[in-house]
Amino acid sequence: MSKGGAFGVVEAPDAAVREQAQARQLQLTKPAGSLGRLEQVGNWLAACQGVCPPKAFARPRVVIFAGDHGVTTNGVSAFPSEVTMQMVGNFLAGGAAVNALAAVAGASVRVVDIAVDGDTDPAISVHKVRRSSGSIATEDALTAEEVDQAIAAGRAIADEEVDAGADLLIAGDMGIGNTTPATVLVAALTDTEPVAAVGRGTGVDDAGWMRKTAAIRDALRRARPVVKNPVDLLRVASGADIAAMAGFLSQAAIRKTPVILDGVVVTAAALVAEDLAPGASAWWVAGHRSTEPAHTLALKQLRLEPLIEMEMRLGEGSGALTALPILHAAVATLAEMATFGDAGVTDRS
Amino acid sequence: MSKGGAFGVVEAPDAAVREQAQARQLQLTKPAGSLGRLEQVGNWLAACQGVCPPKAFARPRVVIFAGDHGVTTNGVSAFPSEVTMQMVGNFLAGGAAVNALAAVAGASVRVVDIAVDGDTDPAISVHKVRRSSGSIATEDALTAEEVDQAIAAGRAIADEEVDAGADLLIAGDMGIGNTTPATVLVAALTDTEPVAAVGRGTGVDDAGWMRKTAAIRDALRRARPVVKNPVDLLRVASGADIAAMAGFLSQAAIRKTPVILDGVVVTAAALVAEDLAPGASAWWVAGHRSTEPAHTLALKQLRLEPLIEMEMRLGEGSGALTALPILHAAVATLAEMATFGDAGVTDRS
Repeated sequence: MSKGGAFGVVEAPDAAVREQAQARQLQLTKPAGSLGRLEQVGNWLAACQGVCPPKAFARPRVVIFAGDHGVTTNGVSAFPSEVTMQMVGNFLAGGAAVNALAAVAGASVRVVDIAVDGDTDPAISVHKVRRSSGSIATEDALTAEEVDQAIAAGRAIADEEVDAGADLLIAGDMGIGNTTPATVLVAALTDTEPVAAVGRGTGVDDAGWMRKTAAIRDALRRARPVVKNPVDLLRVASGADIAAMAGFLSQAAIRKTPVILDGVVVTAAALVAEDLAPGASAWWVAGHRSTEPAHTLALKQLRLEPLIEMEMRLGEGSGALTALPILHAAVATLAEMATFGDAGVTDRS
Repeated sequence: MSKGGAFGVVEAPDAAVREQAQARQLQLTKPAGSLGRLEQVGNWLAACQGVCPPKAFARPRVVIFAGDHGVTTNGVSAFPSEVTMQMVGNFLAGGAAVNALAAVAGASVRVVDIAVDGDTDPAISVHKVRRSSGSIATEDALTAEEVDQAIAAGRAIADEEVDAGADLLIAGDMGIGNTTPATVLVAALTDTEPVAAVGRGTGVDDAGWMRKTAAIRDALRRARPVVKNPVDLLRVASGADIAAMAGFLSQAAIRKTPVILDGVVVTAAALVAEDLAPGASAWWVAGHRSTEPAHTLALKQLRLEPLIEMEMRLGEGSGALTALPILHAAVATLAEMATFGDAGVTDRS
C-alpha cells in the first residue's frame, strides 16, 4: 500500500532483495531455518537496504522527543513535570539509561525539545513547537497550526538524520504524563475501553491510576469523533512531542530507513503514523513489549511481534536499544557466514 | 545448597552485594523497576562478581564442545556425521554463525575436540576422550574411565578459561546427532515420555523423527535405572562432549563465574551438572528458548526463564551469544547511570 500527497509515497522494502536474502540463508553453513527469527530480521533488513548481503549499520541513531503534557495537572503521573527538563539535562550529560544502552548497542543519541515546559539549550530547541501541550481531558492538545508544525518538525528531524547518514532510526520519548495521551490514541484507534488500556506508566499508585483512567476516559470522548483523521486526532488528543514522533516515523519510512519501535508512547505515535503514511509499518520492527497494556494493543493492531519481552517500561528508546544488538546479529550472520560451498561443509545427507 | 567432595563447593552468588545492587537501582535516574528484567539480570551479575556496581565483562568466552555420536547410524539426523569435523574447520576459519555472533557480542571463541570421529588439529584435541561415543540406543555412550575423563576434561577447560581471565562463560555444542542423547537426558531427568520431548534437531524429516524417537525410547530404557546417579547417567546415555559440558558447567559455578546457557544440548548437560554440583544453577542464566521441546522441559526443571525467544535451533552457543548483549546492557545501566542526586533529578512527586 502506498499513498501520495503531502506525505510522499511509502515504497515497500525491496521484495526481490528479500528473496535473495532468503535464498542466501539456505546456502549459509547452518541447517535451513535454524537461526529462526534472526533470519527473518536479517532478510527484512536486506530488503530495507535494497542489497544482499546487507551492510553493518554505519550510524544507528536514537532521537528522543521531549515534551510536557498539560494533563499532568490531573495527577496522572508518579513524577512532577519538572522531571522532563531535568531528564533532558541528564540525557545531554550522558547519565540516563538511554546513554548507557546506546553505548552498548553502538548507537548515538540526540535529544530534541518539542514541547518541554521550560527553556532548554537553543541547540536542542530548534524544532520546539510550544511549552507543554493542552490538557487533553478538557481541551485540545494543540491548535491546527501547532499540529502541522509538530508533524513537520518530526519529518524534518527524520530528514536531517537520514541526510547525516543515519541508516537505522529509533524514536525515544521523554515527557512526564506522556503515557496518558499515548493510551488515548491507542484506545481510540483500537476501539478499546479505558480500563483495558491504562497502565501504571512510570509507576503511579492506585489513586493515581484512577485519576489517569478518568482523564483518559474524558479525552477519549473528545478523541473518538476525529479518530478517522490522523492529523485531527493528534491535534485533539496527543501532544506536540507525540505528533512530531508520528511525523518522524512516517518520514523515516518515506526515506526508506528501518526503525526499531520502542514502548507505548512511540508505538502510539506509530499507529497514527501508519494512518498518515499507509505502508510505513513495513519499515518498522517492534523492539520490545513493555508492561503497558496499550502497548500490546498497539503492537497487535500493527501486526508487529516484539523482539524481546523484558517487562521494561522506561521509554527513552530503552527497549528498542536493548533489542538493537539482535539486528546487528541478524545482519552479521547473513553477511559474514561462510556458505556450504566456501567452507566445504556437506549440506544434508 | 552446596555440596563438598569431588566437585568442590558451589557457593551462592553474594546475597549482600545483590541487595546493594537492588538498592542502587532505586537511586538511578529512572522510575523504580522500570528496566524490568534488565535490573534483575544486573543485580544477579553484581552478586556473581561480588561487587556493586558490577564491572563490564573483560573476557566473555565461548567454548564449543565438539563430538560425534554413534546413534547417528540409526538415521536420527538430517546431516551426516562428517559435518561435525567440517564445522570444526568452519569455526576455526571464522565462517560459522558462532563467529559472526561472537564478534557482534564482544566474545571470543574456542573449539575443543572432545569426541570428533576423526583427527583434528592437535591444538584443539588436547582434551579428546575418544572418537565418537557409543550408540546409546543399544550400548553405553562411554566406559567408566571415559566418563570420568570427559567430566575432568570439561572441568579442566573451565579452569583454563577462568585462569586466563574469562569472566563470563558460554558452552556451545557441535555434534551431528547430539540432540538425541540430550533429549534422552532431559526425558530421563524430567520423567517425560519420548514423544513429548523429541524435536526435529537440525531439521530431520518425519521418517527420521520416528527413527529418532525410537532410538530415544530405547536409550531411555537403558538410562532410567541410573537416573539418580549423574555420572552413571552420563556414561550410559550421553556422549563424551556432553559429559565434558556437564563438567565445565559445574566447574564454572565452583569458580564463581556466570554462564549463559544455550540450547537443548547445553541445557541437558546443565541439568546433569546441577546434580553433579548442586547449586550450580544459581550461576546460570538461560540465554534463549529454542524450538526443541526438551529444551523447555529442561529450563522448567532448572527454573530458568530464557532472556529471548527467537525460535533458534542451531547450537554452537548461538542463542546464548544473541542474548549476551542483554547482559552487557544490564551491567552498563547499573554501573553507568547517574543517580537522582548526581543528576539533580527529582525522585517522584
